[in-house]
Amino acid sequence: MDTTGHHLHQMRATAPLVHNITNFVAMNIMANVLLAAGASPAMVHAREEVAEFAGLSQALTVNIGTLDAPWAEAMETAAAVMAGLGRPWVLDPVGVGATRFRQDVCARLMRLRPDVIRGNASEILALSGIGAKGRGADAADPVEAAEAAARDLAARTGAVVAVSGPVDYITDGVSAYHVANGHALMPRVTALGCSLNGVIAAFLVGQPALCATAAAMAYYGLAGERAAHAATGPGGFQAAFLDALYTITPEDLSMGARITRA
Amino acid sequence: MDTTGHHLHQMRATAPLVHNITNFVAMNIMANVLLAAGASPAMVHAREEVAEFAGLSQALTVNIGTLDAPWAEAMETAAAVMAGLGRPWVLDPVGVGATRFRQDVCARLMRLRPDVIRGNASEILALSGIGAKGRGADAADPVEAAEAAARDLAARTGAVVAVSGPVDYITDGVSAYHVANGHALMPRVTALGCSLNGVIAAFLVGQPALCATAAAMAYYGLAGERAAHAATGPGGFQAAFLDALYTITPEDLSMGARITRA
Amino acid sequence: MDTTGHHLHQMRATAPLVHNITNFVAMNIMANVLLAAGASPAMVHAREEVAEFAGLSQALTVNIGTLDAPWAEAMETAAAVMAGLGRPWVLDPVGVGATRFRQDVCARLMRLRPDVIRGNASEILALSGIGAKGRGADAADPVEAAEAAARDLAARTGAVVAVSGPVDYITDGVSAYHVANGHALMPRVTALGCSLNGVIAAFLVGQPALCATAAAMAYYGLAGERAAHAATGPGGFQAAFLDALYTITPEDLSMGARITRA
Repeated sequence: MDTTGHHLHQMRATAPLVHNITNFVAMNIMANVLLAAGASPAMVHAREEVAEFAGLSQALTVNIGTLDAPWAEAMETAAAVMAGLGRPWVLDPVGVGATRFRQDVCARLMRLRPDVIRGNASEILALSGIGAKGRGADAADPVEAAEAAARDLAARTGAVVAVSGPVDYITDGVSAYHVANGHALMPRVTALGCSLNGVIAAFLVGQPALCATAAAMAYYGLAGERAAHAATGPGGFQAAFLDALYTITPEDLSMGARITRA
Repeated sequence: MDTTGHHLHQMRATAPLVHNITNFVAMNIMANVLLAAGASPAMVHAREEVAEFAGLSQALTVNIGTLDAPWAEAMETAAAVMAGLGRPWVLDPVGVGATRFRQDVCARLMRLRPDVIRGNASEILALSGIGAKGRGADAADPVEAAEAAARDLAARTGAVVAVSGPVDYITDGVSAYHVANGHALMPRVTALGCSLNGVIAAFLVGQPALCATAAAMAYYGLAGERAAHAATGPGGFQAAFLDALYTITPEDLSMGARITRA
Repeated sequence: MDTTGHHLHQMRATAPLVHNITNFVAMNIMANVLLAAGASPAMVHAREEVAEFAGLSQALTVNIGTLDAPWAEAMETAAAVMAGLGRPWVLDPVGVGATRFRQDVCARLMRLRPDVIRGNASEILALSGIGAKGRGADAADPVEAAEAAARDLAARTGAVVAVSGPVDYITDGVSAYHVANGHALMPRVTALGCSLNGVIAAFLVGQPALCATAAAMAYYGLAGERAAHAATGPGGFQAAFLDALYTITPEDLSMGARITRA
């Protein structure tokens, strides 16, 4: 997969408008991540305009972190627009195992055919119906424990399923990749997983979902590796991470990506 | 306009309480910008208290970035209080060209006589009814293309109209200024434009609107120039920008401001 | 109190899940503060799930900064769950003196027996019914002026009451501590007070409230002192503060804590 850098080049050339319906914790850092990467973020959720705005956007992300009923309705409306237009959208089922409400909303959202479902191992296990130990946004299960569930979920839904962790696992139900980029400080900065959804969505525009998702995750992890060199803790890491997203070139990514067939 | 620094001195001496009804992306960085500059920010939106709180505040900002119907109602209520009390308020019509809902809400807000309307060129063009290419929060039109629209909008509404861009344009419909301060990394950090509204509002307290707005924008741009010296990307830039807002003195501003009659 | 460091050790060993119903300004930095300190944050507010999620959490914080009616309902629901289960929860009455709505909501919340009430001097004075000069989130009264009100409030409610300021005051109505850690840049970064609530809540899990609150505040202030060495303004300070929360060891805290009986 020596074309990894090309996916980044293509994303920056497109500079897609990514519509995000995400949680309150993530909104600022997610917008900064997308700007640093080279995409154009927007956050819009009102029932009066969410469909109209989705129609203007090239990709959508939906994240249920700080869910409530009006926001769930906005998510469904926007996802239906994207599905209808054949434009990519990404679902992040944050903490889906924690409450019945989250399970119900995710069940409705999955019927709207997300192109990518990304979560931690506990979330993917819970979403696949296998059950998991997750609590809140933190994973209590290792990635390996969720690989079979991810393949099953991908085969059932037609989505690419991405399991985030020390080594990420990405599958369309047939093929699969491991992405070994990343750093242990990343889960110590809030909403970096949420923000990754936006980068994946931006990479999806005009590019095949499985490869584009793997490339986006390698790019993101590589930025984490670079940031760790400059940081002594999660505060400095966050700034250095944005700088790395901004400065990594397609050539850097092709050199630094650690993607292998799984 | 060698009195530019005096406007900063005056703002800090007042340390005004600025009430902000703004978007979820901007809230944290906007509060940090106001604290670093020397003002006192507050974010209040509930219908049960928004009028009461506006009455306690010295200035108001309204930003429609993550608008919905209850928030639009809060914006109108608070703006009406400020207009009634003769206290300054600033309108930022984020993405007004994108949806009908935004156009309707902005039309209602403009009837409440904002003291300053600040946006990018696409937003000012859309607001003036001339139409524009804008999508989301990013400008697709150059500042020069919006100068006539800004003058027209100022003359029609009685507001000072400020167009943000590489060289800002500020007019009350009769006189006009260009402000050449700023740096190309600023649009790569989310919500810096939104946060500028707060600084403008703080400068407006007890000071004439046209000069105070130009001074606020020069101060803001000068902080961007200083931050760029210390930064290699948008992450480090954001921290350095807050530090620059905090450390710039009135004398620094008078020396560094690049304001010219337009 | 040479066991201060032990409280930090205990908190990190527990790594409690802290449920936060807080304001939009604080959400991101509060989550980052909790992650840096070693706890696990979650933000959940929907009526469909807030009780269920509170039941999964080890501690709760409630902060009325950007209050509205549905959020107030969520706060009451979650606090009632925690009170019923005997799990700790912390109330931050942001700007309670500013509006009638805040006073009403706080009155209802106080009936649900918070374990800790933390605010600035103006807020504690307002909450105790004595009246204060507060406006928005900033204190206009010195800590000393609120010490009698804090003792009275603690005695009436059974809560530990903590007054934040240059020297903090913490009392259960009988005993009291002063905590002299901290730095003048801390109030120049938004929502650091709000975020402290989460750290206190995390320290409360399985530990006695008065000592645990004092230890949490000393830890927080010590991180501020360390951050100030590395910072030239509030932007750099924020990153350095998170790094300090992450790197301070229990031994560092026992050495650096400046807690005295009041």
